[in-house]
Amino acid sequence: MDLGENAIGRQRWAIPDGYIPAWSHGPDPEMTSHEGLSILNTGDREVEVRITLYFTDREPAGPYRVRVGARRTNHVRMNLLTDPEPVPLGTPYASVVEADAPVVVQITRLDSRQAENALLSTIAFPV
Amino acid sequence: MDLGENAIGRQRWAIPDGYIPAWSHGPDPEMTSHEGLSILNTGDREVEVRITLYFTDREPAGPYRVRVGARRTNHVRMNLLTDPEPVPLGTPYASVVEADAPVVVQITRLDSRQAENALLSTIAFPV
Amino acid sequence: MDLGENAIGRQRWAIPDGYIPAWSHGPDPEMTSHEGLSILNTGDREVEVRITLYFTDREPAGPYRVRVGARRTNHVRMNLLTDPEPVPLGTPYASVVEADAPVVVQITRLDSRQAENALLSTIAFPV
Amino acid sequence: MDLGENAIGRQRWAIPDGYIPAWSHGPDPEMTSHEGLSILNTGDREVEVRITLYFTDREPAGPYRVRVGARRTNHVRMNLLTDPEPVPLGTPYASVVEADAPVVVQITRLDSRQAENALLSTIAFPV
Repeated sequence: MDLGENAIGRQRWAIPDGYIPAWSHGPDPEMTSHEGLSILNTGDREVEVRITLYFTDREPAGPYRVRVGARRTNHVRMNLLTDPEPVPLGTPYASVVEADAPVVVQITRLDSRQAENALLSTIAFPV
Repeated sequence: MDLGENAIGRQRWAIPDGYIPAWSHGPDPEMTSHEGLSILNTGDREVEVRITLYFTDREPAGPYRVRVGARRTNHVRMNLLTDPEPVPLGTPYASVVEADAPVVVQITRLDSRQAENALLSTIAFPV
Repeated sequence: MDLGENAIGRQRWAIPDGYIPAWSHGPDPEMTSHEGLSILNTGDREVEVRITLYFTDREPAGPYRVRVGARRTNHVRMNLLTDPEPVPLGTPYASVVEADAPVVVQITRLDSRQAENALLSTIAFPV
Repeated sequence: MDLGENAIGRQRWAIPDGYIPAWSHGPDPEMTSHEGLSILNTGDREVEVRITLYFTDREPAGPYRVRVGARRTNHVRMNLLTDPEPVPLGTPYASVVEADAPVVVQITRLDSRQAENALLSTIAFPV
């Protein structure tokens, strides 16, 4: 398969700590508690990405499919994914991200359960 | 040994900065200060994990044993580990995580010592 | 090309999650919402760095050019970059950092949209 | 040289983003703004660590020397280092950590300049 010119990164990434806080303070959408899965595609063709979610007490869900255009980034809000099923709130999960060409992946969580928001972020683990 | 089909990641991980804040604000358990050790097992068999804790002024403690089912994630709350001994609060420590098949590990801390919570997270270091 | 004595790191880094919050609380400049791109050059000659920004719905912008002296660090405030165009506020983006000798790159965001600031940081991904 | 039995990690690490906030809220020492450089030594002999600090507009400072015992972790508070000179507050810097046997290094910042604290953390970059 043509992996695309100028593509950088890896085709599979893992994120063990997923969690979308179940409530929020502050104006929507900026301050709504969420996880953002940021995907960078520097290549010259669109990339198809499949996200599989792992849970503590049930079989995995997915794949969730998203696309990232050529020379584009897509900051996927996990709480807006609905197909094949909504991502449950207040529930620990983990993610595996698979792309049909190299991309770079980072996860960021904004937690506004209390009056002031908190942030965490890390580059995902390339596997 | 059979490492399991579809297992991804590494079998040993290190986390130098461990610290469970000794007090909290907000509703328990969501807002209780804690460290969560998130372990992802994408493989087709259950994984046994051994956690060893290192301190600044005494010999290591452990191993603490936890299990992660096939195609599951386990978000271990470090403050709930009690065997062979409770993890001390308000005390700097470090962790080494060893699994009998590849996993991916991430550490997240929620600190609610002040009225509003703070978060940190990083993928552990594969060794 | 002479890469410089004592240079450590890599010549290309990617950061998928870029976002400069559009408003702030607290005294300027310390508490102004911003992203800091920290570049370390341990080598014996000045390094030229080119930053390219990727967006969700338009072609990339850049290169933005910055320099890091021999045995120096430069903590670039992304919101102060204006050439070839200002970095838009409140807009998701991603970055690729290319240097003409090895450097190490870390991204940190201070978000003071609410009364209390939040922080995130991660080493960039070497590509 | 004997690198020590059971030592894991690397002997050199870099951290581009260093910054000790110049003021604080809350009880000392827990809530004092600081950076903690967490070093894990799983090996069977004491490790000597040298820290060099890089700045934006002057030559590097150091080495600062710290020791980590066999099977110990040392969470070094950067703001307590005084030899060969105090680490300046409110000043961007970067660090290179060199050890005479493998260790693992993580940096964590607690920023309590506003009433509620913020945290960031990342594994350092192995070089």
